[in-house]
Amino acid sequence: MKYDYQSILDEISEEVRKIDDWGRAANYIPELAKVDLHQFGMHLCSVDGQNFSVGDVDVKFSIQSVSKVLSLAMALSLQKEHLWKRVGVEPSGNAFNSIIQLEYENGIPRNPFINAGAIVIADILLTELKRPKEEFLNFVRNLSGIKDLEYDVKVAESEKSIGYMNASLAYMMKAKGNLQNDVEEVLDFYYCQCSIAMTCKELERTFHHLTESKQAFGSGKFTLTASESRRVNALMMTCGFYDESGEFAFEVGLPGKSGVGGAIVALDPLRYCVVSWSPGLNKKGNSVLGMKALELLTSKTGTSVF
Amino acid sequence: MKYDYQSILDEISEEVRKIDDWGRAANYIPELAKVDLHQFGMHLCSVDGQNFSVGDVDVKFSIQSVSKVLSLAMALSLQKEHLWKRVGVEPSGNAFNSIIQLEYENGIPRNPFINAGAIVIADILLTELKRPKEEFLNFVRNLSGIKDLEYDVKVAESEKSIGYMNASLAYMMKAKGNLQNDVEEVLDFYYCQCSIAMTCKELERTFHHLTESKQAFGSGKFTLTASESRRVNALMMTCGFYDESGEFAFEVGLPGKSGVGGAIVALDPLRYCVVSWSPGLNKKGNSVLGMKALELLTSKTGTSVF
Amino acid sequence: MKYDYQSILDEISEEVRKIDDWGRAANYIPELAKVDLHQFGMHLCSVDGQNFSVGDVDVKFSIQSVSKVLSLAMALSLQKEHLWKRVGVEPSGNAFNSIIQLEYENGIPRNPFINAGAIVIADILLTELKRPKEEFLNFVRNLSGIKDLEYDVKVAESEKSIGYMNASLAYMMKAKGNLQNDVEEVLDFYYCQCSIAMTCKELERTFHHLTESKQAFGSGKFTLTASESRRVNALMMTCGFYDESGEFAFEVGLPGKSGVGGAIVALDPLRYCVVSWSPGLNKKGNSVLGMKALELLTSKTGTSVF
Amino acid sequence: MKYDYQSILDEISEEVRKIDDWGRAANYIPELAKVDLHQFGMHLCSVDGQNFSVGDVDVKFSIQSVSKVLSLAMALSLQKEHLWKRVGVEPSGNAFNSIIQLEYENGIPRNPFINAGAIVIADILLTELKRPKEEFLNFVRNLSGIKDLEYDVKVAESEKSIGYMNASLAYMMKAKGNLQNDVEEVLDFYYCQCSIAMTCKELERTFHHLTESKQAFGSGKFTLTASESRRVNALMMTCGFYDESGEFAFEVGLPGKSGVGGAIVALDPLRYCVVSWSPGLNKKGNSVLGMKALELLTSKTGTSVF
Repeated sequence: MKYDYQSILDEISEEVRKIDDWGRAANYIPELAKVDLHQFGMHLCSVDGQNFSVGDVDVKFSIQSVSKVLSLAMALSLQKEHLWKRVGVEPSGNAFNSIIQLEYENGIPRNPFINAGAIVIADILLTELKRPKEEFLNFVRNLSGIKDLEYDVKVAESEKSIGYMNASLAYMMKAKGNLQNDVEEVLDFYYCQCSIAMTCKELERTFHHLTESKQAFGSGKFTLTASESRRVNALMMTCGFYDESGEFAFEVGLPGKSGVGGAIVALDPLRYCVVSWSPGLNKKGNSVLGMKALELLTSKTGTSVF
Repeated sequence: MKYDYQSILDEISEEVRKIDDWGRAANYIPELAKVDLHQFGMHLCSVDGQNFSVGDVDVKFSIQSVSKVLSLAMALSLQKEHLWKRVGVEPSGNAFNSIIQLEYENGIPRNPFINAGAIVIADILLTELKRPKEEFLNFVRNLSGIKDLEYDVKVAESEKSIGYMNASLAYMMKAKGNLQNDVEEVLDFYYCQCSIAMTCKELERTFHHLTESKQAFGSGKFTLTASESRRVNALMMTCGFYDESGEFAFEVGLPGKSGVGGAIVALDPLRYCVVSWSPGLNKKGNSVLGMKALELLTSKTGTSVF
Repeated sequence: MKYDYQSILDEISEEVRKIDDWGRAANYIPELAKVDLHQFGMHLCSVDGQNFSVGDVDVKFSIQSVSKVLSLAMALSLQKEHLWKRVGVEPSGNAFNSIIQLEYENGIPRNPFINAGAIVIADILLTELKRPKEEFLNFVRNLSGIKDLEYDVKVAESEKSIGYMNASLAYMMKAKGNLQNDVEEVLDFYYCQCSIAMTCKELERTFHHLTESKQAFGSGKFTLTASESRRVNALMMTCGFYDESGEFAFEVGLPGKSGVGGAIVALDPLRYCVVSWSPGLNKKGNSVLGMKALELLTSKTGTSVF
Repeated sequence: MKYDYQSILDEISEEVRKIDDWGRAANYIPELAKVDLHQFGMHLCSVDGQNFSVGDVDVKFSIQSVSKVLSLAMALSLQKEHLWKRVGVEPSGNAFNSIIQLEYENGIPRNPFINAGAIVIADILLTELKRPKEEFLNFVRNLSGIKDLEYDVKVAESEKSIGYMNASLAYMMKAKGNLQNDVEEVLDFYYCQCSIAMTCKELERTFHHLTESKQAFGSGKFTLTASESRRVNALMMTCGFYDESGEFAFEVGLPGKSGVGGAIVALDPLRYCVVSWSPGLNKKGNSVLGMKALELLTSKTGTSVF
């Protein structure tokens, strides 16, 4: 079946813009609090390479936790199965920075998409790579096609300045023996990774390789097998939205990943990759309009992976 | 692409039968402890209606927690969206009978596939139906095509006799105001529902309607919409395997549901419904050979929903 | 030093009666909800046998959890050190019916004064005694000197009718193997034990033996050694007031035990035993006026055990 | 009644030295791991000023957590009742560095004697004092009479180098808004405070003021009222031994405080202050011989505060 994605995107845009409460920006990060809340964009590229856009698709935003999929892919390409000794593949059933699970489960985070798990992945990249910041940046440059991509140092420092809970999580894991590098260095890398800024179009291109029409996900020596790529999708399905992962699977039915910058990337592996963005978040830290837009997309097309 | 499912099933059977440790039966239920561990069967029916079998596909087993999908479908057809006020759609991140989450979250179970959630669903059916046991049995008879299906009273009583943890969960929810009926009656219905016995073939037929080729799931006035059916699939994907749901999504990549009788039902909505069965369980309560068989199925066919 | 206890009690009564908010009755127990809130009594007997009273000291009230000290004493006289394998001596750090600790600590309650611990003690008495209800009643008759003391069956049944949380705790312990008798029978005994009614004067006499001037605590073959009696005092100090035990030790500085009927018994082993009573409770389930009265008693006399 | 304390101490020493397993040193702190395990000393001073010693009473050891009583006393003299808004007076019911309670209770530690609570107290001293390290040292010099007392910088640095769990706790409290100063500075002060070394005799003298025969506890402008001093005793009774506080109250029946350097200070307010020391710890972090020695002291003298 062939969909008229452009009309669908236009309809979605019209509907979500009618929402009364567009949510709140991630105000706890001073640099992100400055954003204009009244923005919304959505970009979809079908597996046969056709592009469809609506709204603010060329505005840069901080990709934040969406970067956790990229760092996981890089680490997985390096350590393969060994990686799963230090981080699990189970949904957390708790808020994104819960420390309780960590204490009971010996410093092994539930999955690589909660903060603790992404910090372990950062630690792995620090151990495996010679020049971690440079090599990770090049990896993302290759995937996104943005040659001059840089870390946004102001955002990284802004997050670090109030990152007490992440420090608490990281020191807990250090105490339990699950961080090999200096805690400050690990957090420094982690905040850089999260600070990357992209547009909807650029972020879609970065993740487009996870659809089936393309080769396995990655770049150069940091490339996953097809089977590994599918597993990254599976993880996005079960763990991509913190404490709202079940809700997203239930309402949208696609693997996806959100970030507190307001972006959501989602994939229907046989049909398309899509990015929605709007900086206002709900209480669980996911974009209000972005969530709604994707829910409308799968209900209007009558499809999901199920 | 066309798969030679029969050859694939034969290969799978040969491989899984080589596994050294076939696991343990659900020995805590006296009646289930009697089963012969050395059994394995697998039945697949493609969306175009072709049937493929290997091994012990005509042996009856207790479907146990697989029945939770059926009771959920019936309750959802009756209460629609209202149902989600009393039970969530998030993975639990804890073992299948954990009481801690219940205490902190006011007696609202995380999802309908953990025991506490299924007990709430049983309570809903007791409230909504005039003759709950009879009507539920007819619902399953219609889905499975087994006209003379009955509850296995011996199994139900056996489970009840040692069901102290379920009683603890149920009384906790009663204390928190999330059970409307008498606790003993709710548990009585719950154990009946779990005691139903089927063969691999029969169980496959019961769930076959959840693939896209068929109409929406259910029977008569207890029928879901297509959208609701997809959501049941989504729930199986994120919550179908207790504390191993992420692992199953990760390794197999299909929505599914397991039971401590050793059965697993799984669906690739565009391709097939499949049931694997072997009574030996791993430590998390899922069938050892059944899990492996489904992992081999999606890796050999190179497919999953992702 | 010699204190004029009568004047002190009169002063205390005057002061506490000025409190604006006398708290709420234990309304969750229908039978206790009927009590007249505007009552306060206090009775003190010094180690040299002089009695001092103020207020409603001859009104009967339900002793409720104060009975846990009596059942512990009886069980300890029977099982000695063995008893501590099934219940701990550590403060719980949680509300009086928290189930979380039980699940993590294998069904072993933290101490005999939280509900779960008292239920284990009830189970022990059921195992050790031939006619548990009759023998326990006689034990309390002997201690209190009330020859015609009876269980208040209406109160016991009232509590049982809404005792879902206690049932949840008991079934959890049964599941973990820490209850030997039938759960319903254990709870039946437990609710009877709690239902006993006494006046301030009678309750003081019942506990007076725990001061040093008397022999070791108990009656007939159910008598503790002096060392065991002191340990019961120690437990009252660290665990007697649920989640407010530290607060009571801190503000009052005496071992004591409270009940949701509004009674508090406290001891200064070298000086006196005292009972205060007022049915209005604070949020932690302890008598508002009773707590304040005891705080005033030790601050006015300038003493505590410290 | 008059006790022959010297004979009792001699007997105790003989008995405890027969214990087979003297425990393990606090090996996780490199500098403390070097200590000779085979040491035991005990010093008692009665309220009438008579001194009794046995064993290694002139060997210096790190007082560690015993210092938490001293910092609490200083902070309490400065902030009075206000202090209890930021730290509780309830036993923790958890191991000494548990982070779970902190997350659920909004960063307010249960009491000032668990690590998190002592870190809050350190934060208060940093806020209240102009030259915190110097003033705290002078406070302890005045109490102990050791004019040239200094921090043991090597021990402080040794602890800091592996203090990941304390860092995790401190950052958690910073995240929750319960630390006012820079986390690194707070921890630096905390480790200094713990690093002070004393002998049994010196430590007894430091705490002797908490017995009733002396004036209220403290020094100069940092002096508690008599009522405040009694409350510090009450806190030692309910919270002085981490997860073994109930056990100590139960077995020994005195307020006391232990440290991982192997020291225990305890008080019978009407009779004596006593310090026992032996560097081998049990699994809960309390001195094996020190605990046993105090248990023997109160059982041999037939007394406790109860």
